[in-house]
This record gives sequence, C-alpha cells and structure tokens, in this order.
Amino acid sequence: MIQTDTKNILNEPRITLVGAGPGDAELITLKGVKALQTADVVLYDALVNDDLLDYAPADAVKVYVGKRSGDHSFSQDNINRLMVDYALNYGHVVRLKGGDPFVFGRGHEELDFAAEYNIPTQVVPGISSSIGVPGLQGIPVTHRGLSESFWVVTGTTSDGKVSADLYDAAKTNATIIVLMGVHKLAKIAGIFINEGKGNLPVAVIQSGTTVNEKVAVGTANNIAQLAKEQEISSPALIVFGEVVSLHPQFKLVKEVYDVVAGR
Amino acid sequence: MIQTDTKNILNEPRITLVGAGPGDAELITLKGVKALQTADVVLYDALVNDDLLDYAPADAVKVYVGKRSGDHSFSQDNINRLMVDYALNYGHVVRLKGGDPFVFGRGHEELDFAAEYNIPTQVVPGISSSIGVPGLQGIPVTHRGLSESFWVVTGTTSDGKVSADLYDAAKTNATIIVLMGVHKLAKIAGIFINEGKGNLPVAVIQSGTTVNEKVAVGTANNIAQLAKEQEISSPALIVFGEVVSLHPQFKLVKEVYDVVAGR
Repeated sequence: MIQTDTKNILNEPRITLVGAGPGDAELITLKGVKALQTADVVLYDALVNDDLLDYAPADAVKVYVGKRSGDHSFSQDNINRLMVDYALNYGHVVRLKGGDPFVFGRGHEELDFAAEYNIPTQVVPGISSSIGVPGLQGIPVTHRGLSESFWVVTGTTSDGKVSADLYDAAKTNATIIVLMGVHKLAKIAGIFINEGKGNLPVAVIQSGTTVNEKVAVGTANNIAQLAKEQEISSPALIVFGEVVSLHPQFKLVKEVYDVVAGR
Repeated sequence: MIQTDTKNILNEPRITLVGAGPGDAELITLKGVKALQTADVVLYDALVNDDLLDYAPADAVKVYVGKRSGDHSFSQDNINRLMVDYALNYGHVVRLKGGDPFVFGRGHEELDFAAEYNIPTQVVPGISSSIGVPGLQGIPVTHRGLSESFWVVTGTTSDGKVSADLYDAAKTNATIIVLMGVHKLAKIAGIFINEGKGNLPVAVIQSGTTVNEKVAVGTANNIAQLAKEQEISSPALIVFGEVVSLHPQFKLVKEVYDVVAGR
C-alpha cells in the first residue's frame, strides 16, 4: 500500500467502548488506558474525568458529547453518527463512558449502530458507581447476615418516570441502589415508607470518588430532609438497605438517638 | 529513628483491599496496580489471576489463601488473622480479591477485623464479574425497552442454600445475575419455570474474561441440559432476562427454531 499522509487511509476503522469508572481517574482499568493510548478519536461523556484524556495521543481528536452540555445537547442518534463518522474517517474511536458502558450507559445501542456499518467493536468494562461508590464509603452492597443480594435500578426511565421496578424493589430484602434518582429523592423514599420501611437505613452519595464527594446518611423517613440540608444534588446515587447501618456516620447518628432515648 | 534491617520497624502496618476484577489481568484498575507495587505482603484468592502478583515487589511475601486450596482450606477467621499478623510484622498488606471486594467478597468483615487492631485500611474497587462478564459476552445488564434494572444474587448462602431472594427475583422484570449458583442450575432455573418463565432467555458463562471462557445460551426450560452438554462448571455465573436475547448465540438459536417451526 502506498503511504500517504491521510490518516483515514492508514487507520482501519474500529470502536472501543471503554468504562471510565466512577470519577477517580485511577479507577480506570489497565485495558482502558491501553485503548486510550491507541485512540485516534476520543468521544467522552459528562461524568468522565478529564484527566483520562491525557492517556490519548496528543494529536488525537477529543470530543465532548456529554448530554449535559450547556450550549447544545447531543442526542443518542447524534452520538452514534459521530462515532461512526469518526471511525470511518480517522480510525480508532474510543467511546469513553462514565462507570460501566452497560449500566444505564446505552452501550449496546452504540455497538448495534456500529455493527450496521460493519465496524469492528470491542468493550472494556468499567467500575460501576453502583458498587464502587458505596464500597468506598464503607457500605458493602452485600454483607453476611444483612444482605444476600443487591438490586440496581434507574430513578429516571426513558419517559422521565420512576422505574416501575422500584416499587417491586421496595418490597424485597435486597440492598437497593438507585442511580439518577436524587432529584426525586422524596418520592423514591416515599415508596419505601409506603412499604412500612420508614426506618430503613439510607445513604445518598454525590460525586462519589471525586473531590466533590458528599454523603448524607439517615433513614427513609428523614433522608430527603437531610439531603436537602446538606445541599446534595446530581450526580448522586441512593442506597437503601440494612448494609447502610455499617456506615460510620449511621453508627454515630444511632448512638445519639439512643442517648436521647435514654437507652 | 535508628534504621535496622528488620522490616517490621520500617513499615507502618496498613491493609488495602483490592478488587482484582473478573480474571483478565488487564481488568484491574490503575489504583489496584499502585497498591500492589507498594505491597510488603499480598494475600490472594482462588479466582485472582496469578499474573497480577508480578506487580508486587519481587521480595514481597505472596500467600495464597484461596478457600479452594486442595491440601488445606483457609477459613475466614484464618484469613483475617493472617492479614493482621502480616500487617503488624511486615507493613503493607494487599488483600487481593476476585471481582469487587464487597460483592459476596466478605470485604467488610476483613475491614472490621483490621479495625479491632487499629490498622488503617483502604479499599480499591474492582470490576465485578456480575456486570463485566455478561457485558463482554454481548449481554448488557440494562437495555432500553428490555431492562430498567439488574439484581445480583448469590446462588449459595452461608448455610449452603439457594438465597430466598432468588424466589422474589424470579417474579420481577429485573435482569437477574446469579453468582456461585451453577452447581444448582436446574434448581435455580426451576424457580423461574415455576413463575411461568420457562421461555425466559438464560446464559451461563464459565470463567468469563479468561482463556477458559465457555458460554451456554438458552431458556429457563433448557439451560440446565445445555450447560450439562457443554460441560460448564464452576466458576460460572447465570444471567436470566430478556437482555440475554441480544447475545449473538441466542439470535442463532431463535432463527433455527423459527425455521424448524416453519415461521
């Protein structure tokens, strides 16, 4: 093949979906870093740590496609088309997504779209905030004697509603982790209160693993008020379950209550 | 302080729980590698990739504490005590665990034990096989229109039984991922069949992300037979849910069925 200086002739199109992890740049995998090091283009989301872009070559194209962008927003269709266009014209596209690509990440839709153009794809899993963020706060999603399972639910479905699965979840003994639900915290806590679980321990964690991390710990009854007082906002996740009682802050709250109650 | 050649005087005791990920050595995090690079001792489990030990210094003590060890088995008590003894005598102990330390990993019990001795602890999350292994097989744990949540359950509780949570799980629309349940596959599939879900797509994945990876894809009705024919054994996970229909092998099976049925 005659070499030219046109990049698109030298580089075979391919796409790698990479999970960037929950925020801390060191929580990406080695495989994720290797993918970035061979990227011709990086398409990255709102919740991805910018420091990760430094692993890509200096001359790689880096495009922010976060749906939170103030000036204009990228629809999933836009992102899919950008991804394919860049792969066909530049070569290796790394699609860098917060957390894991398949935990409410629409990763499979992107793979499907690439397949229509016969572009080879690879996947590199990431640390999902659903497990990693509670763990780093001292809340294990499972724990002998407290929880034999955990259930991860979206607080916002594609039609903007609370997932119907949450009503089922509130009836069970699983640890329940709600992603993208903090703006509906009172409503979501109410689902558990309606099941007679007002005293169930609950934690809300904002911006887990980053310098902006904030946490509120309470019960279904008071968590909405506590989160409001502590000005906790999106992005945040909510954990419902007895495992939350293992959080140091919950133990403290409980001791104060016990003293007040004269126990 | 007068320097001596006794390691335990130079190194402050500390313990880092590190999630090694699902098997592929490149699926550990950068932070996990950094922890290993400063380890004086590594205590590692059965499902951890041995290649990861090379990140630890050559003179670090490396101890296999896998409960599957043929000659002798380590109880959780033994592991806790070893971990603390090594920290007090050698310094930095990295406790390297398969997947994530808190997904049926008893990580919090180890942190609790260390706290009794006032040994500082840190946690580095890992890629849980529950999410990463299905994802790499082309099965997203969530997918628009198919699943708004996923529920991870143990197939073997501390008393050796199937978790009661599985009976609840089989009634819901969540994607259900069962860890440590493949030796009870027929019984577990039966729980879904009893809920009228005999045609629910199911995948069983053995040794995900390693060279020994094997997968069987079918429905609740036939998965136990298929897994037997393909000699799938532990370690393996089971995925129940409509998202399994996205697996290429399931599409193939469905096409063959449709042809046979004259559709």
